[in-house]
This record gives sequence, structure tokens and C-alpha cells, in this order.
Amino acid sequence: MHHPILLEIIDHPFFQRLRRISQLGLTNYVYPGANHTRFHHALGALRLMKMAIPTLRDKGNQIPEEEEIASCIGILLHDIGHGPYSHALENPIIKGVSHEEISILMMDELNRQFDGKLTLAIEIFKDQYHKRFLHSLISGQLDVDRLDYLTRDSFFTGVNEGVISHDRILKMLDVYDGKLVVEQKGIYSIESFLISRRLMYWQVYLHKTVLCAEMMLIKAMERAKELAKKGVELPCTDALRYFLYNDFSIMNFTGNTLEMFAQLDDNDVLSALKYWKNHRDPILAYLSNALLNRNLFLIRQIESNRNDLKLQEQKVSNSFGCKIEDASFLVFDLTIRHAAYDIQHDKILIISKDNSVKDIVEASDFTYLKDLGVPVSKTYRFEYQIN
Amino acid sequence: MHHPILLEIIDHPFFQRLRRISQLGLTNYVYPGANHTRFHHALGALRLMKMAIPTLRDKGNQIPEEEEIASCIGILLHDIGHGPYSHALENPIIKGVSHEEISILMMDELNRQFDGKLTLAIEIFKDQYHKRFLHSLISGQLDVDRLDYLTRDSFFTGVNEGVISHDRILKMLDVYDGKLVVEQKGIYSIESFLISRRLMYWQVYLHKTVLCAEMMLIKAMERAKELAKKGVELPCTDALRYFLYNDFSIMNFTGNTLEMFAQLDDNDVLSALKYWKNHRDPILAYLSNALLNRNLFLIRQIESNRNDLKLQEQKVSNSFGCKIEDASFLVFDLTIRHAAYDIQHDKILIISKDNSVKDIVEASDFTYLKDLGVPVSKTYRFEYQIN
Amino acid sequence: MHHPILLEIIDHPFFQRLRRISQLGLTNYVYPGANHTRFHHALGALRLMKMAIPTLRDKGNQIPEEEEIASCIGILLHDIGHGPYSHALENPIIKGVSHEEISILMMDELNRQFDGKLTLAIEIFKDQYHKRFLHSLISGQLDVDRLDYLTRDSFFTGVNEGVISHDRILKMLDVYDGKLVVEQKGIYSIESFLISRRLMYWQVYLHKTVLCAEMMLIKAMERAKELAKKGVELPCTDALRYFLYNDFSIMNFTGNTLEMFAQLDDNDVLSALKYWKNHRDPILAYLSNALLNRNLFLIRQIESNRNDLKLQEQKVSNSFGCKIEDASFLVFDLTIRHAAYDIQHDKILIISKDNSVKDIVEASDFTYLKDLGVPVSKTYRFEYQIN
Amino acid sequence: MHHPILLEIIDHPFFQRLRRISQLGLTNYVYPGANHTRFHHALGALRLMKMAIPTLRDKGNQIPEEEEIASCIGILLHDIGHGPYSHALENPIIKGVSHEEISILMMDELNRQFDGKLTLAIEIFKDQYHKRFLHSLISGQLDVDRLDYLTRDSFFTGVNEGVISHDRILKMLDVYDGKLVVEQKGIYSIESFLISRRLMYWQVYLHKTVLCAEMMLIKAMERAKELAKKGVELPCTDALRYFLYNDFSIMNFTGNTLEMFAQLDDNDVLSALKYWKNHRDPILAYLSNALLNRNLFLIRQIESNRNDLKLQEQKVSNSFGCKIEDASFLVFDLTIRHAAYDIQHDKILIISKDNSVKDIVEASDFTYLKDLGVPVSKTYRFEYQIN
Repeated sequence: MHHPILLEIIDHPFFQRLRRISQLGLTNYVYPGANHTRFHHALGALRLMKMAIPTLRDKGNQIPEEEEIASCIGILLHDIGHGPYSHALENPIIKGVSHEEISILMMDELNRQFDGKLTLAIEIFKDQYHKRFLHSLISGQLDVDRLDYLTRDSFFTGVNEGVISHDRILKMLDVYDGKLVVEQKGIYSIESFLISRRLMYWQVYLHKTVLCAEMMLIKAMERAKELAKKGVELPCTDALRYFLYNDFSIMNFTGNTLEMFAQLDDNDVLSALKYWKNHRDPILAYLSNALLNRNLFLIRQIESNRNDLKLQEQKVSNSFGCKIEDASFLVFDLTIRHAAYDIQHDKILIISKDNSVKDIVEASDFTYLKDLGVPVSKTYRFEYQIN
Repeated sequence: MHHPILLEIIDHPFFQRLRRISQLGLTNYVYPGANHTRFHHALGALRLMKMAIPTLRDKGNQIPEEEEIASCIGILLHDIGHGPYSHALENPIIKGVSHEEISILMMDELNRQFDGKLTLAIEIFKDQYHKRFLHSLISGQLDVDRLDYLTRDSFFTGVNEGVISHDRILKMLDVYDGKLVVEQKGIYSIESFLISRRLMYWQVYLHKTVLCAEMMLIKAMERAKELAKKGVELPCTDALRYFLYNDFSIMNFTGNTLEMFAQLDDNDVLSALKYWKNHRDPILAYLSNALLNRNLFLIRQIESNRNDLKLQEQKVSNSFGCKIEDASFLVFDLTIRHAAYDIQHDKILIISKDNSVKDIVEASDFTYLKDLGVPVSKTYRFEYQIN
Repeated sequence: MHHPILLEIIDHPFFQRLRRISQLGLTNYVYPGANHTRFHHALGALRLMKMAIPTLRDKGNQIPEEEEIASCIGILLHDIGHGPYSHALENPIIKGVSHEEISILMMDELNRQFDGKLTLAIEIFKDQYHKRFLHSLISGQLDVDRLDYLTRDSFFTGVNEGVISHDRILKMLDVYDGKLVVEQKGIYSIESFLISRRLMYWQVYLHKTVLCAEMMLIKAMERAKELAKKGVELPCTDALRYFLYNDFSIMNFTGNTLEMFAQLDDNDVLSALKYWKNHRDPILAYLSNALLNRNLFLIRQIESNRNDLKLQEQKVSNSFGCKIEDASFLVFDLTIRHAAYDIQHDKILIISKDNSVKDIVEASDFTYLKDLGVPVSKTYRFEYQIN
Repeated sequence: MHHPILLEIIDHPFFQRLRRISQLGLTNYVYPGANHTRFHHALGALRLMKMAIPTLRDKGNQIPEEEEIASCIGILLHDIGHGPYSHALENPIIKGVSHEEISILMMDELNRQFDGKLTLAIEIFKDQYHKRFLHSLISGQLDVDRLDYLTRDSFFTGVNEGVISHDRILKMLDVYDGKLVVEQKGIYSIESFLISRRLMYWQVYLHKTVLCAEMMLIKAMERAKELAKKGVELPCTDALRYFLYNDFSIMNFTGNTLEMFAQLDDNDVLSALKYWKNHRDPILAYLSNALLNRNLFLIRQIESNRNDLKLQEQKVSNSFGCKIEDASFLVFDLTIRHAAYDIQHDKILIISKDNSVKDIVEASDFTYLKDLGVPVSKTYRFEYQIN
């Protein structure tokens, strides 16, 4: 049974809104089963948190009930600040304000509404609480967030390679010297977790066709913002209009702005595309139509230093019939970089039977783990198909 | 590899629209993983058709390639006429025109665009082709439609009881005397299929909370239509407006109407609710808000002949502060009836080793199968919660 | 973590012997993955018991730790008295002594070795403890034994139809008026459980080919016993020899006999078949060879009152070249009867929200459940194939 | 439907014997579900071969039916020469003759019995057929053998990390320049396959407790052979006796010896342990008892150059009460080496869209793949526990 505060948070419109925000944006253009939402993910991560805490307690770590509840609130709300299509539109819609920052603003607002009952949860979420392992469970190299999303995304995409043993990993967790650690005998499961994560990145999250669809969506939003700046009328919901016709920073992201943001979800964007597919701006209309009917750009992996983009823009502007300065909406390059194990942030710590603690990279017998910390980069060109 | 015509149909905007129509309407209010779409289901059913045909051929039934392609087109398009939220809104949005009728209209339009290449598919779909077993594969007691949706809905809801052996059933199919039959040794799998179907109906499709959410959505749409009739302005997309402010019959459901219908999807309805949650009509606003935040009516199973509804309407109108004649949007009864095996339509035929063919109900040793043909009915009362 | 007494019992040779007793006898002749053992099943049932107890406690039922441990011991040992090939050879090897009786004898012996620590467990197992619901968890219409074996047997055979929601059922359990009951909202899962159980019986446990193989094994053992009575030498392990050359009743099944029984497992029988396939008795040799190489008898379902068995024995004795009185080893009928829900024993009780308790058959809206209590019977003839 | 020759081979006693040879030896001492057999694996590998061939044909590679049947026979029989407990007892029972050599001898014998119908299969199996890709499908870095056993062993042990996408890999296969290649877009699945294979090795096949159990079994067999050489009587089956009391080389492994080998299976070894647990030789009795009751040696990972084994043998001989020269049965070291990708044998070849072919290690963007070719070694000490 969940604590009443958890049920009240789940019932709050801020949280119910997550039902309308897809977990994986336009990934369903490649994996059609991937229609799961942030709502589902948040509940799943809560479940894993509720498995992790008793395991830690069984190993002698004191975690009073109020810390458990706060950790549960923290994980439940860890993604509350995500906007439409999760990561994809973070930048074009609200430039310069990250979803983590918005999450904190929304938690503060909820804390106000719930009379301060979220204070400890917010401290843990911000890593300001002295028991830092609770923060690590919410946000770290091996947090319940990742354990949930890898399992969930693998399930809904059908990519078997992403299957991890989240239950076994949870059973191997412990706290040592105030830090979250993993028992030595869980080392193979951790290796498998890192490898699975890498494969999910390249095969799902950074799949070239997914990237193409998401970039086209970004371009459509950027085009809309550009037109908005020029005063062109763009039919859309009030909430989306608010963000298209105004600019924001973290400073003025409060009160009414937060309220408007809480109205936004995938649906606002999708209905805008449906309006705009007949817009008199041919670029906005083209992109909207193309997205609705999954008529995607050509995709090619290219050398990162290839310098023929200008030339290609010329060709595209001729073929499409747009100004050369607008061609960048129709042909562009994208370089992505990803490392499966981010060695610059916190580490996954392995504790041996004699209580010596090592980074997984050193604890493992296998040299290749080091390489997982080396970012891999790829460059793609996406372009309008010239007939 | 799929035949090019299948790929072209999949790429057509009519078919891509199915990406935006959820398979199970508001079922995700109970089973949060149930976000799969008609698009996914249509592709899945196509896959099963492509497994069924070779099995039938291996058993000596002649199925030329053109019949195979036509059957594949037929199954791909069998749900093309579904509107927003699939079954839920069929009636309130377009009164008196079934989704099957619209499917045929859309197929006719596609046939026009594809120069008559769908003619055979349409004949099979309408059961006008002499090899009637091809129609049975698309639409019958044991069609690939059902085999796909039971498997798929069970997967995405997580209701284990719905798991069926669709692959085994497909392997047991044959044709005898022009009819689709099942080999005797598949009898337990068929029984299991019927039982699973019944359980899925009561545990998923007719789950009382799902029914409640869908009824509230229907009431919201009916309220909107009522307001529209009175000339009240209702912000919404052009396509939805077209259907709110006009009435249609199968007679005038062509040309522009069909075109407008092809613009409609879940998104039009959801964005309307987001507009309407602040509408000055309190009933429309209440229902819209309640749906968005999953703040559902009270649900009680009642005797079907209970006659206190008028009394309850009075109480609700007092509490909510609406006219008594409007209380029916806030409190109402629903009686559902369902039989797992519809004995009035076509039958599931079992063929024994000596080629005698019997209805499953007679072929089975087990008396309870007969009872599956008896409809079960339940009555629920849904009502606005009086404080 | 398990209580030390549980670990000690698991390490005891009596329990380790279960590793060498297959759960499903010769079922792997039909479903080749079904090689799981009584050892695995006992551990699985223990796990379910450890899930059931906290659920009952959460609902306010007092279960002190010593009762929990005793229930765990009880379920761990519930099958300890099974002999080689589980059910198949129960009768031919030790006539007139059931595996339940032997289980109690072995528990008594373990209780002696463990200084009386199993006393409460044995009381619960024998249904002599006043909290009878603990016995129901071990042995009843809805015990953890059945929940485990249906799940497990379905997994290892690959028969999807047997999948049940054992975790959901466990969560629905409660105790009312001293009896184990199921919450009303679990009713569909119980129905599904009953149906799955019926299907598993007919599709796995009583599959005609499995029955054939097991009957041939029984016939081989009976032939061996017959030869043993005549003083014919039968090479085999000492433990098997002890049971072939002597007869037992529950009265003299103690001391050395129990010790010898604890030596017996599948392996004794299998190695005997390997010896006997070259035995000079042609019937024993034939049956042994046939079993080793899965060269099974012909199987036909027949009317139960068919009276041509004598005639068939004559034909077989001519063809095989054996005495007419020995033909019953080579051709015989078997009538099986099974009811999915044994209404004569304890019932599955459903408790409604207003605390009224009903048998599932009455609580369910669906008439066919009653039929699950009606035994179905089938008769098969198995016979040596005449060239 | 399978070709009749395949069904006849499956029915042959040589093949039915595989039912009695466990796929993973004593791995069920760690993963109790791992009771699957070589029989099941051979059928599974056959199924994958029957999926691979049509895929290759669809891509334009000519594979006449007789080559398909021969490849199917080859994979069906690829493990036919395995003795009891598969790999574990290969050496102690028949020193100096590998299971591959025995497989060929048994295939030759079957070829004789089936009038030469296996000739092409044997050529392919021995890599003497000019279409070498057929051999690669049976035995190579990416053969259907590995694809089946990884999937199967992962399923039966429950080790999720071993899950691979065998069906996707099969769909990516092609032939280029006479060699088996994988399409570029399958590269992540291949990487995942290699990683899964490595993890399965360390977490299952080379699990220290599995190694311990298997080494104890080897020691028991070696002890038995030593006693046999001295003329000590060892009760056991005739087939096992034949191999304990005689020595063989590939030269004299024909006729009667092959016939006796075909009688051997797990059961002979297990029944011998049951006899020997009361043998008057205390070492043989100890090892037999310990194996039957899973009372395993102490296991420690040690430095490979540790040189205190002599000292430890002294302690153990004192404690156990055996001669110092016999202590090596009770305490010993084992060094294992394994590389996930054996770069010295054939390679996994990736073909790009422009038909350039590269080793996976070069084709992959990820440096760590090279490391998979570097063998990892570990040394364990197993020892009798001194009280």
C-alpha cells in the first residue's frame, strides 16, 4: 500500500499530465509499440524504489519511514518537468531552461500546495540531504530511474538486447561509507547493465530514423518560433501559443508561466502540426505534413568534417523553391556523442567481501569496460529528398 | 518482404492516421501500459495473415498470389474506418454510421486512388468473393483480427489470463468444403481462446472503470453536440467542429465529409477537452476537467431494474447546481451484455480425422462451452460524487 | 533470507533426493522441455508461501513467526514422499502406500533428527492445527502447491494456456472466520486459474501420449514384480531390488524400509530399464527397449464400454508370440476421470465487500463454473503394434 | 514438415539417447531449472537451421533441397558424440578421444545403417564440402548451435543477461564470396551476441560452483579408474564398466566400443555414484556422497602462481586420513581461460551496403570488441573442508 501523500501526488493534475507525455517521443516511428508515457515510467520507478529501500534496510542501513516516503516522492516527481515529447522539444520550446530546473519549480509549487510535506523530498532530489545515497537512488549511474527505463523501453520496443536484471541489481545494492555500492557478486549484472544501456542508446534512443523524426519536429518548432517572431499567425492551443510567442529564462519561469507550462503536453504539439499542415508558409506546412505522415528526410551517416552542406542547401533551396537562408530547415547535419558510462560524474562502486570499494571499471577483470567511458560520436546528414 | 502495394497503403495518410488512434480508448486509465494503437494492431494482424496463408497452402488449398495480396490488403484496412478512441466515440461523433461502413467508404476511395488494385480485397472484405474462407480469416469467430488483438491487448495491459496460443491456432487451420475449419487436435487451444476472450472482455474491455471513463467521454461529446445545436461556440479543431455542428448519415458520408473524417483522430478530442475544461458551460467544463485528470464518477453495480434514477438525478442537480434535465450528463445507468461465443453468427468448425465437421460447442466434451454463447449482462450506475 | 532450519532441511539428503525425481514423469516424451524436478517445485512453492504470509498479515491476520516457519517447512516437505517418476510409479512400486503417507513418515523421521523442530509443521500438514487456513495454504483448492506447479509446468512445457496470475491471486487472499478466502475482485483470476488447471490436465498431465508412456512404465514394473515373485533374477540397484522383491503396507513401512525408499529415485528405474532391455523375458525386454527409445504403443480413444479387449489380446499374443495371459502387458484400456474443481473437498471461498462468503461457483455470474465440478472421463486403448 | 530422413534419425536409439544427456551437466546445482538435454538442444538447433536456409535463399543464394536436408542432418547430429554430462566427463571417461571425433564415428555408423544417405551431411560437417558456408552454419563463430544454446541456456537458467535476438541475427545472414556474412545493420545484435556469450560463460558455464561440482565428478571418475586399474571391484552398469576398466584411443574406437559408448548416458554415472557412496574406498565414497547431496568443496579464487598446494595437500591428508599422494582428489587448483570471440578461428564477417566485408572487430565503432578476443583467466582452489 502506498502512503496517502503518494496517492495525492499521483492524482494531482501536474502528475496526471504525464499521461500525455510520451516516454520516447517519436521512437514509435521505428518501434511502433513504443507508446508508453512518462506517467507509466514514474510509477515503475516508484515501484523499484519501494523494492530498493527494504533491501538496504535488511543489510542494516537505517532508513526511517519519512526518508522512505521522501525518496518515493522524489522518484515519482523526478521527470515532472518534462515538456511535450520529453527530450526532443526541450530546447526549441523553452530555450535555456532544462527539464530538471522545471521539475524543481513544479516540486516547489506542489510543496506549497501540500503544506511543506515535500521539503525533504526536494532536499534529497537536489542532493542537499546528508544521506547522499538516497539521492543516488534517484539520480546516479545506477539509479532506479535508469533501471526502470531500460527495462521498460526494452519491453515496449521489443529490443531484447536491452533486457537487464533490474531485480537482481536491486538485491545487490548496499550502502558503505555513506555511498551507494554494489556487492561484488553483482558485477556481471552491472556489466550487462552498462552494455545494455549502450546498445539501447545506439539501437533505440539514437537510432538514426528516430533522430531524423525528432530533428524534423525541432525544425518545425523552430520555424514556428521564427514565424511567431515575425508576427505571423499560427493556429494552436493557448498554452503552446504562450511559449511560441514569448521567450523565457529560469528567472521568469514562475507563476503564470509555470501554470501555462503545466498545460502543455504532446497533444498541443500534435494538434499544432495538424493545423499547420495547411499553413501558407510552405516550410512549416511541409514539415508538419511530413511528420504527420511519416514522410521523413533522407538520412546518411557522414564524416564529421564534411563541408559540402552549403552546396547541398543551394540544391535543396532550388528544388524546394525556398530562400537559401531557409534551406537549413530542410537539410542539416547532426553530430551525436554518447558514452555508456559517464566517468566524469559519479561512479558505480563495487564493494568486495573484505569491504574494499572500487569503481566498476577497476573492479572488473575486463579491460573493455574502460572503453565504455569513451564517448562515441557519429554524424548524420538529414535532407529533403530532391525529386 | 511485403508486396509493394501493401507498403504503399501503409504509407498512405489514411493508414498513418491509425498511429493516432488508440486501440483501447481510455483503457490506460486502468492499465497504464495500454497505449497501443490501431496502426500497430493492423500491422500485427497482417503478420498473422501472412502466417495463415502458407499454412493453408501446405495443406493443399490453392490460394493464388493475388488472393493472398487481397487478403493482406483486407486485413490491413479492416479497421481503417475507426474514429477517435476507436469504439468509444463511434456513436456520439457520427450517429448512425458504423466504423465498418466508413471502412468500406475509405477502401473505395483508396481503390480509386490506387487504380482499382483493391477491388478483390474489397470483395473479400464484404464477403462477396466465392472463396468465403478468405473473408472468415479477416472477419469471423476465429479471424486473425481477434487472434492479434487478444494477444496484443493482453501484452500491453499485462493481463496474463488473456494469453492465447495464436501461433498454434494458426497452424491448426484448414479449409473444408469451402469453409475455414480447425483440426481436432487444436480443440483445447480453441477452448482456451474462447475462455481468454471472455476474461479479456470482463477484465479489460468491459472493466467498470474503463466503461466509466468512456461513458464520461461520450457524455462530454453529447453535451458538446447539444451546445453546438444551440449555436454555442466550442473551440476545437476544424475537423472536430465539422462533426459537432453537422449531422450525417451513410448517404451523405462522401467527398468532403470523408476527407474531414480522415483528419480526425484521438488528438482532436483530447485537445478539445483541454480547451473545454475552462468552458463557461459548467457541465462540459466539469466533464472535460474530470477526464483530463482522471477524476472519475462513482461506480456501482446495480440491479438492472432499479428505478431510483430520477431521484438520484434530482439529488445530483441540487448538489452540482444544474437543471434537472441536464442531470443525465452526471448520473446514468449502463447495461452491458456480452457473450464470449456468438452462436448467432458464424461458428468455429472443428474437423475430425475422419472429416466430420462440427461446431466447437458440439465437438467439445465439455458442457460449459455452450454457456459461453449465453450473454451475460451487468448494469452499472455512474454518478457525480456529491460532497 | 531463509530461516536456518529451512536451509538445513534443504541440505538434507531426503530433500536433495528430490533433484533426481522429475516433476512430470515421462511428460518430456511429448514436451521435451519438461525436465524440471520436485526439488525445483518445492523451492518454488516455498517462495510463494513466503509471499502469501506477509499479504495475510498486512490484512490484519496474526501469524507469529513460528507459524510462518512451520508453514514454510510444511510446503517444503509436502512432496518429500514422492517416489521415482512422481505419480506414475506410486502404485506399482509400493502398493497400497500413498506418497502422502510416506511424506508424513519422512517428516516424522526428520523431526526426530531435528529434535522436534518440525512438530508444528507436521500438525499443520496433517490439518490438526487449529488455524486451519495454514493447512489450506499447503493443501487445498487454491494452495501454493497448485499455484506453483501450474505456473512451472506451463513454463517448462511451453503450454501458454496454463499461464495463471499466481502473484495476483496471492495478493487477493485473506482469512475470514478462520478460513482462507479470496477477495471478490480476484474472482476472474480464480476463474482463469480453474480453467487453466482444466486445460493443463487435458493438454499435459493427461495427454494421451504421456499416459501411454507412463502406462508402459507401469506395465514394465508390474512385469518385473511378477518375475520377481517367481524368483527370476532382475539386475537393478539394491534399493529398487528391495521394493521389487518385497511387499509393503503402511504398517511395516518404517526403519530400514524408509531408509531404502529414501535411496530410490528416477535413476534406479531408468538404469533398471537399461539392464532389462536385454533381459531374457521378452515382454520385460520389449517394454524396456520401447521406453528407452520412445517407441510407444498405438493409442486410440474408445468408447468406455467397448468389449473387444479379449479379442485384441488374442491377436497381440499371436503376433508378439506370448502367452494369452501375458497379453495384458501389451494391450490394455485406461479410463481417466478428472474434474477441474473438486466440489466434494474444500471449496474456494469468495468474500464480498460486505463480508458475505460464498463458494466460487455461486459467487461467479457464469453458469459454466458449475460444470467444472462435473468429472469428465475418457477411455483409451494402448496396444502393441501388430506388423 | 520435416523430411522423413530427419524423423528417422530422431527416432534412432543414438539420437533418443540424447534425452538422457543433460545439456549443462551439473549446472543445476546452481541454477535448478537447468535440466534441459542435448536432445532438446539438437531439435532447437534444427529449427534455427530451417529458419536460416530460406532467409539465405530469399537473398538469392542457391541452396538445393539436398543441401538443405544435409545441413539439417548435420546440425541434428552435431552433438551426437557427447558422453555423460556433456563436456564434464569427456576426458576422464574416454581419454584422448574428443566428442567431435566420436560424433563423426557415430555419423559414419548411421550412414551405414541409412544406406549412404548421410554422406553429404558428413562432408558438410567435416568442412569438406565446397559450399563452406553450410559448414559455418553448423560450426562457426555464429552458428545455429551457438544461437540455440545461448537462447536455451539463458531460458532454463533464468539468466536474463544471456538473452540474444537469434531470430533477428538469422534474418541478417547472407553469403558473399562463398562465406557466411552478416548485414551491416545487424552489427548491434552481433555485438550483443558476443557480450551475452561472454556473460553466459562467466555467469553460467564457468560459474565457480558449477566448476567445483564438475571437478568433483571428474575426480570421482579418475579415482574409479585408478581403482579399476588396481583390480578393485566397482559396481556399475556394464557400459560404464567397459570404459572404466579399459583404455581407448580413436584407433580402436569402433565396433563394439562404439556400441558400448552408445549405451552410456548420465544415468550410468549417477547410478554408479549411488552404488559407490558406500564403497570401501573412503575417497570414492566421500566424493560420491558429496556429489549426491551437493555437499561441495570450499571454493576460493586464488592467484595463479600460488605455490602452497603441497602444504594444503598435507593438511587435507591429515584431516581426511588419507595418503598424501591421494590428497590431490580432495584439494586441487583449476585455471580456466576463456575468450568471448576466438580470433584465431574463423571470424564473424560484416558486409556493408557497398559489399565491403570486414571482421566484426574492425567493422564495429567500438574499441572494446577487440578485447573480447583477449582470453581472461582465473584460478580457483577447490578443497575438502577441514573441520
